[in-house]
Amino acid sequence: MSKVLVFGHKNPDTDTITSAISYAYLKQQLGIDAEAVRLGEVNNETQYALETFGFEAPRLVGNVAGEANEVILVDHNERQQSADGIEEVKVTEVIDHHRIANFETSDPLYYRAEPVGCTATILNKIFKENNVEVPSNIAGLMLSAIVSDTLLFKSPTCTEQDVQAGKELAEIAGVNVDEYGLAMLKAGADLSDLSLEELLTLDGKEFTFGEIKSVVAQVNAVDVNDVLNRKDELVSLIKQNIEENGLNLFFFVVTDILNNDSTAVVVGNAAEAAAKAFGKELVNDLVDLPGVVSRKKQIVPVLTEGL
Amino acid sequence: MSKVLVFGHKNPDTDTITSAISYAYLKQQLGIDAEAVRLGEVNNETQYALETFGFEAPRLVGNVAGEANEVILVDHNERQQSADGIEEVKVTEVIDHHRIANFETSDPLYYRAEPVGCTATILNKIFKENNVEVPSNIAGLMLSAIVSDTLLFKSPTCTEQDVQAGKELAEIAGVNVDEYGLAMLKAGADLSDLSLEELLTLDGKEFTFGEIKSVVAQVNAVDVNDVLNRKDELVSLIKQNIEENGLNLFFFVVTDILNNDSTAVVVGNAAEAAAKAFGKELVNDLVDLPGVVSRKKQIVPVLTEGL
Repeated sequence: MSKVLVFGHKNPDTDTITSAISYAYLKQQLGIDAEAVRLGEVNNETQYALETFGFEAPRLVGNVAGEANEVILVDHNERQQSADGIEEVKVTEVIDHHRIANFETSDPLYYRAEPVGCTATILNKIFKENNVEVPSNIAGLMLSAIVSDTLLFKSPTCTEQDVQAGKELAEIAGVNVDEYGLAMLKAGADLSDLSLEELLTLDGKEFTFGEIKSVVAQVNAVDVNDVLNRKDELVSLIKQNIEENGLNLFFFVVTDILNNDSTAVVVGNAAEAAAKAFGKELVNDLVDLPGVVSRKKQIVPVLTEGL
Repeated sequence: MSKVLVFGHKNPDTDTITSAISYAYLKQQLGIDAEAVRLGEVNNETQYALETFGFEAPRLVGNVAGEANEVILVDHNERQQSADGIEEVKVTEVIDHHRIANFETSDPLYYRAEPVGCTATILNKIFKENNVEVPSNIAGLMLSAIVSDTLLFKSPTCTEQDVQAGKELAEIAGVNVDEYGLAMLKAGADLSDLSLEELLTLDGKEFTFGEIKSVVAQVNAVDVNDVLNRKDELVSLIKQNIEENGLNLFFFVVTDILNNDSTAVVVGNAAEAAAKAFGKELVNDLVDLPGVVSRKKQIVPVLTEGL
């Protein structure tokens, strides 16, 4: 029970999984008994990154309360995105690049958030601050996280720091960023083996905007019509999900990773209001979001403001 | 309106005032139009530090909403301890060493909290990370903050990092830590020119423990009887304060800075429960707290847990 668990958010993405592995490695080098774990299934993109650099997925954990007394959160802080049982353990550190909400501690802690594109970019600094070298396979994972979160440096969330960290890590990992990055993104955008149910929750995050209980989910696609052609089926599944989870809003974003545009399927009693937050009308449950690729920077702030 | 304001908490102490000045200075060196401001009167201890190192107190600000669009918080994060109008401005950075609570943003930000004794210890790192030299007069202020928050390195909140930063800064400032530190603490513990009303709010911070709206205030004294001899008068003033502010608890801590013990005057409908949180009985509105000197580490966590 003296072990500290390191994990990212539910419905894990590449940054969440690889940052847990990378930061647990750093902590181990500093003499701390840290273990990376995950709160959900690994997606195709992350699986591609893990396999390329020779890693297994971390151990899956349900409720953390029985597992450890202390935990470190990476790539998230909001309680509803975190582990079951999070209220019963002590959060000793957070390394994140999101807004702060629904987060409270009774004691001081190490909290490091920076407005950069990716947790791995912050971890790259923390490795340096602690004079620990990033090994080549960990560098590959950290590079994967940056490519994933910034869509190969094209997302508006991408900063000069992410570009710089990406270059450094690619050099250590010995890979060509553009070739490897596109191959990884395409592996993630390959939705052919996923059912619509799986698509819905692949990268869904819960948010509460005022009184409005919401899920904002996002999938990357090479061709958005692969998803949107099955919209009617999708809408009825979403309605079922809303019913089961008592939601007011399900905001499902399909992002075209080649053209950097998105279309959202928006359902729920707050759907009209959500569309209006973007200055749009809801047409057949759809809202067009040209130029929008970032949930964190282009969707959540608009919904927070508008709802 | 393009200026960014830097400020600490209401009822400012030495760390809050000097960290605002020090961090605004660092930001200016980095080309940012930053201004340190304060949210309340400067206490005797802080005044001593400012005069010793040749500074004026920062400008007093009431509501920040009309003053700037963007603000940086130092030495606090909880909304009720922050400026009036804080909801209407954008918090772009927080540098702090307290627990996190009642804090929420809609956008990602730079948030740097570390579980060390003093904000100045973190600022000392951030100066280095940005390759900006700490000038001798700013070093004097930062040293003053560390001495104040750690009671000359004797508080349980004091870490090896605070001791190290204190040494470095004393060297830059060219002062003898022990001599200067004790003189500064004594200037702060000189309560002779303060009315009881002033004592009550000198260093009071609001907290909400569950449903219990509370103020936890603290004064340092060389002889606690200077304060406790006037306990009856104090209790009636506290009752008035509770009435006016709709509080459930006023927890007023008098700390003996020479012996490192405290006695608390505890009033309100949650007073018995608060005493019980420490495993104590309330006797004549008093609770003995031997060995307790830190609100952050020895009082707030106990009340959070117990109430």
